[in-house]
Amino acid sequence: MALQQVYRTSLSLLTDLYQLTMAYGYWKNGMAEREAVFHLYFRKNPFGGGYTVAAGLEHAVQYLQALKFTDEDLAYLGSLKGSQGQPLFEQAFLDYLGAMEFSCDMDAVPEGTVVFPNEPLVRVKGPLLQAQLVETPLLTIINFETLIATKAARIKEAAKGDTVIEFGMRRAQGIDGSLSAARAAYVGGADATSNLLAGQLYNIPVRGTHAHSWVQAFDSEEEAFEAYGEAFLQDTVLLVDTYDTLEGVKKAIAVAKKLQPKGFVFGGIRLDSGDLTYLSQQARKLLDEAGFTGTSIVASNDLDERLITHLKQEGAKINVWGVGTKMITAYDQPALGGVYKLAAVKDGEWEYKIKLSEQLAKTSNPGILQVRRYYDQERYQADMIYNELEPLPANPQIVDPLDTTRRKTVEANVQHKDLLLPVFNKGTLIYTLPDLPSIKTYTQQELNQLHESIRRYLNPHSYPAGLESGLHQYKLDLILKLREPEKH
Amino acid sequence: MALQQVYRTSLSLLTDLYQLTMAYGYWKNGMAEREAVFHLYFRKNPFGGGYTVAAGLEHAVQYLQALKFTDEDLAYLGSLKGSQGQPLFEQAFLDYLGAMEFSCDMDAVPEGTVVFPNEPLVRVKGPLLQAQLVETPLLTIINFETLIATKAARIKEAAKGDTVIEFGMRRAQGIDGSLSAARAAYVGGADATSNLLAGQLYNIPVRGTHAHSWVQAFDSEEEAFEAYGEAFLQDTVLLVDTYDTLEGVKKAIAVAKKLQPKGFVFGGIRLDSGDLTYLSQQARKLLDEAGFTGTSIVASNDLDERLITHLKQEGAKINVWGVGTKMITAYDQPALGGVYKLAAVKDGEWEYKIKLSEQLAKTSNPGILQVRRYYDQERYQADMIYNELEPLPANPQIVDPLDTTRRKTVEANVQHKDLLLPVFNKGTLIYTLPDLPSIKTYTQQELNQLHESIRRYLNPHSYPAGLESGLHQYKLDLILKLREPEKH
Repeated sequence: MALQQVYRTSLSLLTDLYQLTMAYGYWKNGMAEREAVFHLYFRKNPFGGGYTVAAGLEHAVQYLQALKFTDEDLAYLGSLKGSQGQPLFEQAFLDYLGAMEFSCDMDAVPEGTVVFPNEPLVRVKGPLLQAQLVETPLLTIINFETLIATKAARIKEAAKGDTVIEFGMRRAQGIDGSLSAARAAYVGGADATSNLLAGQLYNIPVRGTHAHSWVQAFDSEEEAFEAYGEAFLQDTVLLVDTYDTLEGVKKAIAVAKKLQPKGFVFGGIRLDSGDLTYLSQQARKLLDEAGFTGTSIVASNDLDERLITHLKQEGAKINVWGVGTKMITAYDQPALGGVYKLAAVKDGEWEYKIKLSEQLAKTSNPGILQVRRYYDQERYQADMIYNELEPLPANPQIVDPLDTTRRKTVEANVQHKDLLLPVFNKGTLIYTLPDLPSIKTYTQQELNQLHESIRRYLNPHSYPAGLESGLHQYKLDLILKLREPEKH
Repeated sequence: MALQQVYRTSLSLLTDLYQLTMAYGYWKNGMAEREAVFHLYFRKNPFGGGYTVAAGLEHAVQYLQALKFTDEDLAYLGSLKGSQGQPLFEQAFLDYLGAMEFSCDMDAVPEGTVVFPNEPLVRVKGPLLQAQLVETPLLTIINFETLIATKAARIKEAAKGDTVIEFGMRRAQGIDGSLSAARAAYVGGADATSNLLAGQLYNIPVRGTHAHSWVQAFDSEEEAFEAYGEAFLQDTVLLVDTYDTLEGVKKAIAVAKKLQPKGFVFGGIRLDSGDLTYLSQQARKLLDEAGFTGTSIVASNDLDERLITHLKQEGAKINVWGVGTKMITAYDQPALGGVYKLAAVKDGEWEYKIKLSEQLAKTSNPGILQVRRYYDQERYQADMIYNELEPLPANPQIVDPLDTTRRKTVEANVQHKDLLLPVFNKGTLIYTLPDLPSIKTYTQQELNQLHESIRRYLNPHSYPAGLESGLHQYKLDLILKLREPEKH
């Protein structure tokens, strides 16, 4: 339970005030336990990419398992005042909250699954009050970890098999911004982290070199290199750019030669500034000439998928990529923008719900949704969002969300699987959370099922994913009905 | 101690692995307790702005106060293996860490102080090993909170006295990405947060309305509005854009009139989509015509300082701004880029240190630095970074860091104060952390001391801040000496 290893046990107040005011309203109107369905989804792949890697389920599960209002939480809620100084909430409501046990069903796509716009990543079904309350923390956790896992997958793809190390803690957005991002980066493709606490909590391999300050603390660069090499005979990566990069490489080589009789293994050098293509080529030459052909060249300095691709195209001789700010904050798009929308309420029968928008593509989808993925032996072919409660035709059609006149008929000979798996049943965890190495392996398998044109980091092909045509038609009818002025 | 109210007590592993490998190296070389000085500073104001608001000191202090390696921490470090399977660290080193007590001096600028590039926000002086170890968490905390406080100050400035509410938890970068950002946003200028846990931990006012799902959960919008109004008679803000915004406003007005006999106070409406200028103008007209002239119009939907300025210029009738993603993630620049550099080591005498860079402006500053701020009765005039250990001339000169041929002589009649205040003395906290309302008030006082051309959000004037000319000359000499090939 890593979340509770880091945080206090009760995170029940980790939500927006309006979740509690709505909860109070539902309770007061006798609607608190009416059954409802919400879906968590995003509308656009991040970074202009063609896919998204789902992540964060484990932390979401840990949050839900611990969901319980403590006396301290209730005392705080009881202390909140309205504008006239009156208590915002009645005591009987606080008593209700205090006695409440999480009792929703929850279905979710496993961490590491590749997903696409409008597909529910999480579906919560249960008492309206509870299903509403968990909106904000579920969004915080899933939005961020999914964003970072996706960023890491893109960077790992650009590195084409090279090692990628997550180095970004110092630029992370807060403590958990570093911890949960280190885990998500590992899920998505990073091979290790510099973050020790993430290493301990999640059992992620930790890696590191040394800082410029190490070199500065000594009277000369040689002395600094020798001292570091003596301390880590078999695990030394020397940062060579404190004063002059290529002079630094020469000194590192001299020190390596001097220490070889003691069993020194020259692991690598790190470049952290300057023209990385030129410097890595020159450094490689110097290292090779000195016989250190197995010595790695690690690069860092504001790297991301674009820069790594560019450096590789230019012929940079770098084989380990230390990626910091740009990965840990998802710098070019620091939020995913996932939403959590009500899709059905049961009042005797299920009533399907939507939220209108000026754009059809932004209007939420009604029903109790599942995602069916069609695939053949080679790769994933198409995804179809459908309403679980409605019968499916034998050969369903998928409607392109960006051009609803385009339809794709699913061929009979392809296989399919449904992506949302049961996680909680009436509040009881029924899903076995996979361990982190399994999630990481699964992510790579998932990415391998996508055609490389969809994995392209810039202007990728669009993966076919849309609504089942019956659901699409139902949604259209519902929109038209809601737009009749007298009906709402 | 809010940090320890949220997090586990021991955050000693919350650092980069290389801080521990360097620590081990210093320890092995007998340099662990050599006295050293590090400065934490940034090189560029974020968001293309003209100033930065320092924040994060309270959490930094809490982290340092709790700095102690537990048996569990040491067991993890003891479990780390080198590439040949050997333990990475000797047991005697782990014993040293286990016995270690934080014993550094720390000086820092108070939270809410306006600061400028290259000025130390934090100065740590003490045993090399310790002063190095705390680099990463200090950077994580100060970088992020300073970034968000600055963003909030810009947004509050754009809102020109209107209320600004921080709404961003669902898009935050992790749990602490929401909590510490809610606090920093409050420091910088936000008036309230939607984040309940931040409200509880930091005693920040909490605010909220309701979601679209509230409206969807009822059979009609009127019914939903009435139910909410009944639940919060004196504190109702109604979200009116679930189906059709202006129809929603009309229904809200009808409900408000119906509930008036019960003591209903029509607090506000919220607009969350569409053309906010047009819709707010029309909504204002409808509200005013119905006699609800005191009813607020709250707007949300991807707002930031640019959009708020634009909406105000267009004549939008909005008086409360709910700001989410763009503030909580500092969307247009999600990392500050602050660094922590060694500036002096005492080996008998103080030796001043720099890290070279291809650009003079990026080379670190040597010495034991302090920032002197000159001001007159109206406003802040200029800042001078100087070495505390060297004597200052009677009329010091400040060197412009972007054009070192430009010098500013400090006039004799202005007052001055030094920005870095003592916080820890040999590990003992000697600074009284101000409460949050005081910090918030101080921030506004600070911003008022800046000419408005410096506070402008786009293309601001540059505030004069640079090195004292003697320090500048010393730095130049040191660079030239280090660039002589034989000397390093």
